[in-house]
Amino acid sequence: MSKLRIGLGVDFHQLVPERDFWLGGVLVPHHKGALGHSDADVLLHAICDAMLGAVGLGDIGVHFPDTDQAYKNIDSKILLARCRELIGEKGYSVVNVDSSLCLQAPKIKPYVPQMQETIARLLGVTVEEVSVKATTTEKLGFVGREEGVVAYATVLLEKQ
Amino acid sequence: MSKLRIGLGVDFHQLVPERDFWLGGVLVPHHKGALGHSDADVLLHAICDAMLGAVGLGDIGVHFPDTDQAYKNIDSKILLARCRELIGEKGYSVVNVDSSLCLQAPKIKPYVPQMQETIARLLGVTVEEVSVKATTTEKLGFVGREEGVVAYATVLLEKQ
Amino acid sequence: MSKLRIGLGVDFHQLVPERDFWLGGVLVPHHKGALGHSDADVLLHAICDAMLGAVGLGDIGVHFPDTDQAYKNIDSKILLARCRELIGEKGYSVVNVDSSLCLQAPKIKPYVPQMQETIARLLGVTVEEVSVKATTTEKLGFVGREEGVVAYATVLLEKQ
Repeated sequence: MSKLRIGLGVDFHQLVPERDFWLGGVLVPHHKGALGHSDADVLLHAICDAMLGAVGLGDIGVHFPDTDQAYKNIDSKILLARCRELIGEKGYSVVNVDSSLCLQAPKIKPYVPQMQETIARLLGVTVEEVSVKATTTEKLGFVGREEGVVAYATVLLEKQ
Repeated sequence: MSKLRIGLGVDFHQLVPERDFWLGGVLVPHHKGALGHSDADVLLHAICDAMLGAVGLGDIGVHFPDTDQAYKNIDSKILLARCRELIGEKGYSVVNVDSSLCLQAPKIKPYVPQMQETIARLLGVTVEEVSVKATTTEKLGFVGREEGVVAYATVLLEKQ
Repeated sequence: MSKLRIGLGVDFHQLVPERDFWLGGVLVPHHKGALGHSDADVLLHAICDAMLGAVGLGDIGVHFPDTDQAYKNIDSKILLARCRELIGEKGYSVVNVDSSLCLQAPKIKPYVPQMQETIARLLGVTVEEVSVKATTTEKLGFVGREEGVVAYATVLLEKQ
């Protein structure tokens, strides 16, 4: 039987004024930020969900409920580190992560290397094993109207 | 050459009054249900599509056309079981499934264990090898307006 | 350590009159086509992004910027071939590709075999290792209003 597992995560957040905009563990300067109970880091949440899903551990809402004051405004890097522990307790580690951010603005390319470094460090992999891509929706839909942001992530895990 | 294959499925259904709401093979109590030719189980359809796609067998519309009366109101569990046979005829079985439901309401967490058991039984895997996650879209878009539901699924298959 | 890597791509384009509609390297007859700097082949772009993402090589916007006149109206088959070279330089080749087109019209089933052949040839794999699926969004959202098209692709790569 294969020692590999795959996971897929998707997350959504509204963009609103007067919120910090955390993406991939990095504070991105912008006139809007993502709304949420935690720091609303849509990219880290998608990666967390993909990791939990790959090993059948539920989802981010199960582990870090948005009704729990312990997670109010929490740094999602803490959640990602916890997800690494959770898959580790099952004997798994990350082979690689690929992700796509769908947002109309701002351009996040300058921040991608720092996002990759942050995620790689938290997951115990190399920067080459963490991919952060970005695309606009060509002005289509709620992402195109800059009302929200979506992130997709896929992960490959391997049992040690 | 690798004996592994990956697949990705995505499916959409409108939510309308006076329809049963089947999700992951389970009847979820709600004032709306998914509209479709079959029972419109968006989650099972996404998993079917991911399985067929992984081995290059086309998609759910090719195998179970919505113009065929044989599939009118059909239980999608029958379609999922058939997809398992189709990949089996090619020598493949499921390693794991991860899926995400995007819907604004209702909360499906209480039904997830039954969905996992149903899917695992139909695919011949353990409950830990079947993941069903859920997220709202934070009121964004047609999912946020409760007009529709979207499911994403990814599968890893292995040749015996 | 696993020699496998996974990638996930998603791409969006507006549909407008008086543009050719390229999908999977095939010209699909339709009264609208996808708007973009290149030939706007949403399916090939999603596959390119999945391949680049799997090996941490950035995204299609990094390699083929839409501000570069060299890529004006370019045939995306050239971009896909280049992505194969780029992953090859890292020692990787494609195991399989699965993809889903989300579009309301036209029906693309008649063109899928030609898309598969085109993509398989460019990637050096068999037709069975390239899957192109399609779904409408059941009239939901910008895809349902025929304002745009979305493609998702996942790839499994293996190091030689």
